[in-house]
Amino acid sequence: MLEKINTRAPESLDKEETKKKTKELLKEISDLQNLLYAEGKHSVLVIIQGMDGSGKDGLIKDVFTSINPLGINTQSFKAPTEEELKHDFLWRIHRHVPEKGKIMLFNRSHYEDVLIARVHEWIDDEVANRRMEAINAFEKLLQEHNGTVILKLYMHISRKEQKEQLKERMTNPEKMWKYNKNDFIEAEKWDRYMECYEDVFEKCNTVPWHIIPTDQNWYKAYLVAQLLRDTLKKLDMQYPSMKN
Amino acid sequence: MLEKINTRAPESLDKEETKKKTKELLKEISDLQNLLYAEGKHSVLVIIQGMDGSGKDGLIKDVFTSINPLGINTQSFKAPTEEELKHDFLWRIHRHVPEKGKIMLFNRSHYEDVLIARVHEWIDDEVANRRMEAINAFEKLLQEHNGTVILKLYMHISRKEQKEQLKERMTNPEKMWKYNKNDFIEAEKWDRYMECYEDVFEKCNTVPWHIIPTDQNWYKAYLVAQLLRDTLKKLDMQYPSMKN
Repeated sequence: MLEKINTRAPESLDKEETKKKTKELLKEISDLQNLLYAEGKHSVLVIIQGMDGSGKDGLIKDVFTSINPLGINTQSFKAPTEEELKHDFLWRIHRHVPEKGKIMLFNRSHYEDVLIARVHEWIDDEVANRRMEAINAFEKLLQEHNGTVILKLYMHISRKEQKEQLKERMTNPEKMWKYNKNDFIEAEKWDRYMECYEDVFEKCNTVPWHIIPTDQNWYKAYLVAQLLRDTLKKLDMQYPSMKN
Repeated sequence: MLEKINTRAPESLDKEETKKKTKELLKEISDLQNLLYAEGKHSVLVIIQGMDGSGKDGLIKDVFTSINPLGINTQSFKAPTEEELKHDFLWRIHRHVPEKGKIMLFNRSHYEDVLIARVHEWIDDEVANRRMEAINAFEKLLQEHNGTVILKLYMHISRKEQKEQLKERMTNPEKMWKYNKNDFIEAEKWDRYMECYEDVFEKCNTVPWHIIPTDQNWYKAYLVAQLLRDTLKKLDMQYPSMKN
């Protein structure tokens, strides 16, 4: 299914025109974020998933840099620590969900526990299925019990573009710090990763996934800015009147 | 001492020219932050203190919004929770200090425990002095044991301008959510606050305080951007070469 979805913008889309629109969207988002913070009724959780080199960091830089840092936080999830492994897999996630009024970005997330964990056969299908059920219940809890809106993004990169990105980390001095030889080993497992992602999209879809074509930075920034603006706008927020 | 320091920019300073310079500084800071993150050797802790209405939130918005959210976090310290009160006063602070590679903004801080706590006579001078000693040791720990650079900012507002700011919260619909009648009660204790601040500047100065004249937003943004740029630049950072 994923391989049938284009990883690039439609040919007809004008790059400069789109960039201008993105700029407008970012201004709107900045105002809406201020309102989100002032009203303090909702929170927004943006979950960013994707293969190595699919531009998760770049997306955060391009779309979320213009947001007041008082209202936004990011959390990157790497391999769990010893302490974290002594708890259920959602324990370390739960402590980082956004409080009311705030936007939280998850750079990777609890989905790794049904992706990398599955690809490497640290868990079998039965455990994976039970984890996915737990994830659905967890996301429901956040939505229904604390006014959290969840935006799930899959950074859809082509295998060819991924190779380019990973290679760049060996040649561009400003990107060498990102180089990790394990990324190349993981990249070999591409097909299995795609299978596991597709299973996630099918089984964890009470909150829908957005597949973001990501070979071009300007296009992915535009799509995500649009999604975020629409999400915030739908909350129909108001500045609160004077209290006490 | 504080009352002798101007809360406004020197008359000779050109506003538009300064704004342009600030923009340049923010671009430089954005690049330096990327390097801080990539190098991962140092962290930066910015402590922002000041009276109600002195523009702490505004400063964060004006100077820190252009920084990639992957590299910056903010923590606002309000009245301690019941759990926090069962620990020493630095316990809740310590868990939020920045990890290597990151910038952390403290919107208020451990200094409240020798300011509001003292003004309201929840503690006497002896406890205040012991707390200030503990603060000095704590800041030394961060600097010497984790490469943290600490930037301490006092938002220096005039009493007159403070009154304007607090009044605006009663008339500007976009600011009413900030209105808190207690702010007016606190404002009555102005002189005692100034005394306690001056004591802090004298006794907690192993890391120096920067007094930021804050009646004009453009001037305070410029000063803080300059400080931050200089602080980051002095770290003399390098992009790491390829590891593993």
